[in-house]
Amino acid sequence: MTAAHVRPRVTTGPITGSGKAYLDGPDGIMVPVRRIGLSNGEHHDVYDTSGPYTDATAEIDVRAGLPALRAPWVGSREPGTQLSYARAGIVTPEMRFVAIRERCDVELVRSEVVRGRAVIPANINHPESEPMIIGNRFLTKINANIGNSAVSSSIEEEVEKMVWATRWGADTIMDLSTGADIHETREWLLRNSPVPIGTVPIYQALEKVKGDPTKLSWEVYRDTVVEQCEQGVDYMTVHAGVLLRYVPLTAKRVTGIVSRGGSIMAAWCLAHHRESFLYTRFAELCEILRRYDVTFSLGDGLRPGSIADANDDAQLAELKTLGELTRIAREHDVQVMIEGPGHVPMDKIVENVRLEEEWCDEAPFYTLGPLTTDIAPGYDHITSAIGAARIAEAGTAMLCYVTPKEHLGLPNRDDVKVGVISYKIAAHAADLAKGHPHAQARDDALSQARFEFRWRDQFALALDPDTAQSYHDETLPAEPAKNAHFCSMCGPKFCSMKITQDVRDYAEAQGLTSVEAIEAGMDEKSEQFRDGGGRVHLPIASAGD
Amino acid sequence: MTAAHVRPRVTTGPITGSGKAYLDGPDGIMVPVRRIGLSNGEHHDVYDTSGPYTDATAEIDVRAGLPALRAPWVGSREPGTQLSYARAGIVTPEMRFVAIRERCDVELVRSEVVRGRAVIPANINHPESEPMIIGNRFLTKINANIGNSAVSSSIEEEVEKMVWATRWGADTIMDLSTGADIHETREWLLRNSPVPIGTVPIYQALEKVKGDPTKLSWEVYRDTVVEQCEQGVDYMTVHAGVLLRYVPLTAKRVTGIVSRGGSIMAAWCLAHHRESFLYTRFAELCEILRRYDVTFSLGDGLRPGSIADANDDAQLAELKTLGELTRIAREHDVQVMIEGPGHVPMDKIVENVRLEEEWCDEAPFYTLGPLTTDIAPGYDHITSAIGAARIAEAGTAMLCYVTPKEHLGLPNRDDVKVGVISYKIAAHAADLAKGHPHAQARDDALSQARFEFRWRDQFALALDPDTAQSYHDETLPAEPAKNAHFCSMCGPKFCSMKITQDVRDYAEAQGLTSVEAIEAGMDEKSEQFRDGGGRVHLPIASAGD
Repeated sequence: MTAAHVRPRVTTGPITGSGKAYLDGPDGIMVPVRRIGLSNGEHHDVYDTSGPYTDATAEIDVRAGLPALRAPWVGSREPGTQLSYARAGIVTPEMRFVAIRERCDVELVRSEVVRGRAVIPANINHPESEPMIIGNRFLTKINANIGNSAVSSSIEEEVEKMVWATRWGADTIMDLSTGADIHETREWLLRNSPVPIGTVPIYQALEKVKGDPTKLSWEVYRDTVVEQCEQGVDYMTVHAGVLLRYVPLTAKRVTGIVSRGGSIMAAWCLAHHRESFLYTRFAELCEILRRYDVTFSLGDGLRPGSIADANDDAQLAELKTLGELTRIAREHDVQVMIEGPGHVPMDKIVENVRLEEEWCDEAPFYTLGPLTTDIAPGYDHITSAIGAARIAEAGTAMLCYVTPKEHLGLPNRDDVKVGVISYKIAAHAADLAKGHPHAQARDDALSQARFEFRWRDQFALALDPDTAQSYHDETLPAEPAKNAHFCSMCGPKFCSMKITQDVRDYAEAQGLTSVEAIEAGMDEKSEQFRDGGGRVHLPIASAGD
Repeated sequence: MTAAHVRPRVTTGPITGSGKAYLDGPDGIMVPVRRIGLSNGEHHDVYDTSGPYTDATAEIDVRAGLPALRAPWVGSREPGTQLSYARAGIVTPEMRFVAIRERCDVELVRSEVVRGRAVIPANINHPESEPMIIGNRFLTKINANIGNSAVSSSIEEEVEKMVWATRWGADTIMDLSTGADIHETREWLLRNSPVPIGTVPIYQALEKVKGDPTKLSWEVYRDTVVEQCEQGVDYMTVHAGVLLRYVPLTAKRVTGIVSRGGSIMAAWCLAHHRESFLYTRFAELCEILRRYDVTFSLGDGLRPGSIADANDDAQLAELKTLGELTRIAREHDVQVMIEGPGHVPMDKIVENVRLEEEWCDEAPFYTLGPLTTDIAPGYDHITSAIGAARIAEAGTAMLCYVTPKEHLGLPNRDDVKVGVISYKIAAHAADLAKGHPHAQARDDALSQARFEFRWRDQFALALDPDTAQSYHDETLPAEPAKNAHFCSMCGPKFCSMKITQDVRDYAEAQGLTSVEAIEAGMDEKSEQFRDGGGRVHLPIASAGD
């Protein structure tokens, strides 16, 4: 931390209805969970990305940074990457941490890393991060992009955006900052981030050559990568698949090249009529990333920027090259993920996953959305959540969020939250569809609370308890309503769930739990029901039939 | 129209960037479209559900109601239903209107109605409605639920909600009103609605027996249905598949029976230990609906209310019965659609469509969402838009919207708009995925505008121009920014789309539009590019890489 004038203020304290708990592992490993307390005495633990900021007992000092929990692990072993250890049969503390977090066997973690189907992005110089894994056999992860600019945001704002995004569930953060404070902003983020940080080094390299892409060189780029590795960046987007011969394939597109990294490299290649230095020097780059255990996120610089351009020759040519680079990286013991689109209609989404898995040897796929239509600027968190859920169901391991401001402006704090929640929904919907062994428990707990009119439990189990409660309060603000056996849609005198409970009580009391039983045994009981609990009342309002 | 004290004020005037136009058809048919004017002199017409309210030249008087455009058509022919005419080989003006609206051959309309795979809900007593078709060979439709309650809403508010919902794209409106003004509210809605109106008659019938479902009878129900048919209701939800023997199948569910209509009929069946009068008197009901050409919407009273209950025995048993009823209705020349769930994880969605098509002889499927997870109250417009897009891609013809207030409270005007836009997104994403011949033109037009920095065109082509523009204005409010060749994410000095245009101009000037061409011809040109348009500048901000 450098500048004395920087004094970030961040959001701290537990999320409504929950507190921090830690699961003990071997060797003093403590894995955080968010523990939701329920009114029936039970509790429900959920995966927790928020770090110490939501721990009521933690002392937060952003000038000192977070505790370096991984420092003893990193310090006590020979240099290597999670991939090299896994290949050697070594189970690292990071792998143990991840296994507890994912509630799976640690051997699954190790073997998936060996196979390259999962990565653990964990730079040795980012000891503050809580280890996590990205791979399609594990919970689907989400990334939130942040980043300052000279005109619109300060270091303070970016640190708070990072804390805010992880509070609501961002599994990783990409710092896309540019401008004068780029190094210092990143330093503040790294020292205070409980999740892996990703960057796109070409942005800073471009700044060093005053914004002229034709002036870029391997040397400038290499020095920038080393600088960022030293700071602790956990994964880096490298657009090494934008080859000279692919650039003209974009000329007839509706929206050309929409990736900034891709367009920078395209401009460089055309100006010099040479192959991209990211491609020709890729092995040297691998050597650098290996020293720090930095993970490649091989960028899709030629991704489609519109429905019209989806799955075209330029996109698929680059993807195939990313597969070639994946194999080179793995030969150097460097972990790899592959970035994916972008804008893709639903019928072309699954094909993206299939080709990525085939051509890139099952490296974790990391996609931006995709947006399933171009016609809803202002709502692209929704157009893309539809695509994100679909592509994650098909096997994508991490989803890069899209906020409502996409294509229009810079996201503010509210936009960041809406983007994160939308993507938690997409990721969880996919985990349910994939039959993840632990995913449905939260749905069941919430639905049970809903059915039993435990309103506060329903809020606490929601992805966003505060919004759920505030919407409820708009119609029924009084405190007793939180305990009422009705909801605002049907009012106090009528409720379909109340009727169902009557039906259930009745059926169960009579042993009527099958079609046969009810047909055999109900005649004599019907009168009894009509005289008793069979009375229901007038609906006073409506939503859904 | 009755009460003199009722004076609804409704939103009128064109949507930003567009105006009303009419396409001329045979026999004086005039089909409305929303015509979006573009700055390049072109225009783009989109399907328009908003009625005369968005026509700057129309005089709106809600006390007089809309013009009865169908009155001469209805008055000049023998009694019958769209299905009976279609079967007789007769092409009605409604079919011609629909064909122009859908930009398809009228024979497709007629033949799909004959096959029962599409319905045209058009009560002879609702002559104000602009004919539309629901079927999976046509554009995917969306429904918006509205409805007053004694405590929370007035007739005025409901009329405005109807106008507001159709303004943003609702293809039909369901009036789920209850309480004292139920008949009058419906009358105001019907006389002022340019789209078909659906209801759930059991709600009003229950009111007539003072909220006690055990007091319901065929006679009370029948009279209510006749009353609503006389008023002009276009389609009616009838939960005739909730059979006595299916009720106990719900006893072990996590959330029992969540449909109000379903729970009312379950309570009646249990109390009387008799089969539902909706089922036993179904043929009589068909005779009534036929007289007015009212369409059945066979309700899924046993739909799942949670992920845990999806696709269970109760749900599927009812669906099979709905198929039996479909065949009876069609024997009476009555049109039928089938209602579907609800809460369904993504991996179980397609099965719903497959079974519905098989068991219900391809009757149009009309689903509520489905919600793909239970854990996000406050965001169920998103959890369900994901499911809605998926189920529409698989063949669902109409999607019932879900607002952010679902499960929590009553939707206000903003919630109605967000719900409608979310569902327009889902419906359009599905139309793209199904390869609808006209769907992608709007995406292409908007993407082209985006690429060419025609900001006002981009807003005008958006589903919600006002929100798109306001988000843009937050970052760059000045008027010149609307014409600037950059966007707020990258700033005035750098833009990937600007670079792409440079690349494109260069490549095309040199004839470099294939891999071979560029490899053969570029050496001598690279210096020229470096000295010329190859210069780009520093990104000053970021969103997406």
